[in-house]
Amino acid sequence: MTDRRDFFKSTALLGACVLAPGLDLQVRPRPRARSPKARMTLTYKPFTATLRHVFTIAMSSRTTTPEMLTEIAYDGVVGYGEASMPPYLGETQESCAAFLAKVDLGKYAHPFELETILADVDAIAPGNSAAKAAVDIALHDLVGRLMGQPWYNIWGFNPTKAPYTSFTIGIDTPDVVRKKVQEAAEYKVLKVKLGRENDHEMIETIRSVTDKPLTADANQGWKDRQKALDEIAWLKEKNVVVVEQPFSKETPLADFAWLTERSPLPIIADESCQRLQDVKKLYGAVTGVNIKLMKSTGMREAHKMLVLARSLGMKVMLGCMTETSCAISAASHLAPMVDWADLDGALLISNDPFVGTTVVDGKVTVSTTPGIGVAKRA
Amino acid sequence: MTDRRDFFKSTALLGACVLAPGLDLQVRPRPRARSPKARMTLTYKPFTATLRHVFTIAMSSRTTTPEMLTEIAYDGVVGYGEASMPPYLGETQESCAAFLAKVDLGKYAHPFELETILADVDAIAPGNSAAKAAVDIALHDLVGRLMGQPWYNIWGFNPTKAPYTSFTIGIDTPDVVRKKVQEAAEYKVLKVKLGRENDHEMIETIRSVTDKPLTADANQGWKDRQKALDEIAWLKEKNVVVVEQPFSKETPLADFAWLTERSPLPIIADESCQRLQDVKKLYGAVTGVNIKLMKSTGMREAHKMLVLARSLGMKVMLGCMTETSCAISAASHLAPMVDWADLDGALLISNDPFVGTTVVDGKVTVSTTPGIGVAKRA
Repeated sequence: MTDRRDFFKSTALLGACVLAPGLDLQVRPRPRARSPKARMTLTYKPFTATLRHVFTIAMSSRTTTPEMLTEIAYDGVVGYGEASMPPYLGETQESCAAFLAKVDLGKYAHPFELETILADVDAIAPGNSAAKAAVDIALHDLVGRLMGQPWYNIWGFNPTKAPYTSFTIGIDTPDVVRKKVQEAAEYKVLKVKLGRENDHEMIETIRSVTDKPLTADANQGWKDRQKALDEIAWLKEKNVVVVEQPFSKETPLADFAWLTERSPLPIIADESCQRLQDVKKLYGAVTGVNIKLMKSTGMREAHKMLVLARSLGMKVMLGCMTETSCAISAASHLAPMVDWADLDGALLISNDPFVGTTVVDGKVTVSTTPGIGVAKRA
Repeated sequence: MTDRRDFFKSTALLGACVLAPGLDLQVRPRPRARSPKARMTLTYKPFTATLRHVFTIAMSSRTTTPEMLTEIAYDGVVGYGEASMPPYLGETQESCAAFLAKVDLGKYAHPFELETILADVDAIAPGNSAAKAAVDIALHDLVGRLMGQPWYNIWGFNPTKAPYTSFTIGIDTPDVVRKKVQEAAEYKVLKVKLGRENDHEMIETIRSVTDKPLTADANQGWKDRQKALDEIAWLKEKNVVVVEQPFSKETPLADFAWLTERSPLPIIADESCQRLQDVKKLYGAVTGVNIKLMKSTGMREAHKMLVLARSLGMKVMLGCMTETSCAISAASHLAPMVDWADLDGALLISNDPFVGTTVVDGKVTVSTTPGIGVAKRA
């Protein structure tokens, strides 16, 4: 075996591929052996995503999202990653840079050992979930490129099974809301942010122009569980199909369980569900969880959350922050396995530096190129 | 993008690989495009594994194990699989052949979509877990070969973290037991099958020749929970480190929980834990689970069981039937993530048709070749 591998190495380094003889026809020739001294290097630079519309949720409004773009280079191949850091979540470009400065990927012989590398990165400091995701995504992109495979293949998923994505209609005046709904003609499912005084007005305004199914995100905005239940009954009449995060994440799980047991609509935990251990905690209290790479520390833990939630019979929504096509593409490889996709993040920004997963007729459409399936926009 | 892919396809079909220009240096060239009309074909043939020693557990003795060897061919590449069917588990070469005859892989465009394909195979009929594993393993081998990657890379595990494997010392007379222990000099951990009248004699006999740590498998042999607890206390004094399946799988989970709560040793469910849903059921009742490919229907569900068990904080043992190096190699790619490996199945047979994962100085040593890492013995 060693002889054959040496043979590969020497011929492959010349840039040529050969079909192996005899039994080894069973094995696809590897395109090119790695240089024995290849090491990973991580680089990063701040980026400010510009939003197409002022973005308003229950607690804040803003026109930009601070980001960090990462690259991990290894033996002539580069993987791309991203941290999206909406200000209310606590991470900043400064905290992200400080975290990334502590990440030493040079000590690993190769990038394939994701379990160990990402456990090490996670152990550098608590929190910093977007910064950790920026490493995780770039590593996944790198590994997929080195394997010549998109991640849906590595995970064994059929990308054509990805669902429609919802498209968020931000809180605004009725005139603007109607305009936004009309602009969203391509999308088959619309998402509404609730938790303010004008919730009914929002829904009625949307219903004045479309009967598309809606998903509702209360973003922790409701306080009283009976009022929440009454509200959900009203929402169901308006063809809302699922409700996200009714209460504050500090609300006792028993209140979530009370509501979930009685609710005619599925209740999905978003802010309450950050990482893998939260899925376990939320089991029995909610119908399902919203998995986002910027909360989960990236693709590897998101995949574990998916497996755990499915094993426990929980529903799964796949969400995002406002982020570029880099992180959206990374998340989209999980989309074939989820009940609801909410991957409109890159559609909301006007200066996306990447092309990758797109939305075609409202459906999440994953790029077939290796890695997370992105390229830098020309 | 389309142009570039066509370029790849045409040059790659000539058997040559090129490094893509510009941005596409980011992507390893694919060795060879698939023939557009390639389809998978499954073939299988019965095989009888001959045991080196008469194999005795709590309920039976035997000298051979009926098997089925599978191959899945796709576009000139072949993946190997195996069903091992110890008679007391209920599957036979006949039932396996009848099941495999119903598996139509020709309808899938390619083998990468493991989630869908294996869900379809699982839905053909209930049970038949070894027959299903024979399809799953061959598919995994095929996919890994097509990707040019061993499964530990695809799963992101470091193969050097695989633990020592235990080596089973079958129930026998003291003279034979001593001889078997001496023959097992290479192994750092020995496994003892208990649940008979002569349990103490077995342990004392082994202790007369070695102080290596022991794992104990009661194989459902114990009836009384207080007696089991007393026995475990005695076993702990004899440097037994873990106990498998104390009670019948029909025993109420409350009895397992009672024992686990009080036991000074971890309690692992084996016969009680067949598939993914059993891990969920056993959570809280046992310390951990023994995952075997012939129970789990193969590698994909075994990997999910590993993720689920780890997410729930449960311990994991990786086990096997008496089987060839094919199924043992397949299982071994999970070994870096488990607490105890019990992968001596191929060491117990004298007519192994495969070479693959081996045991070196007692440690599970995974082959670095693509797929599950096996080749047919010359």
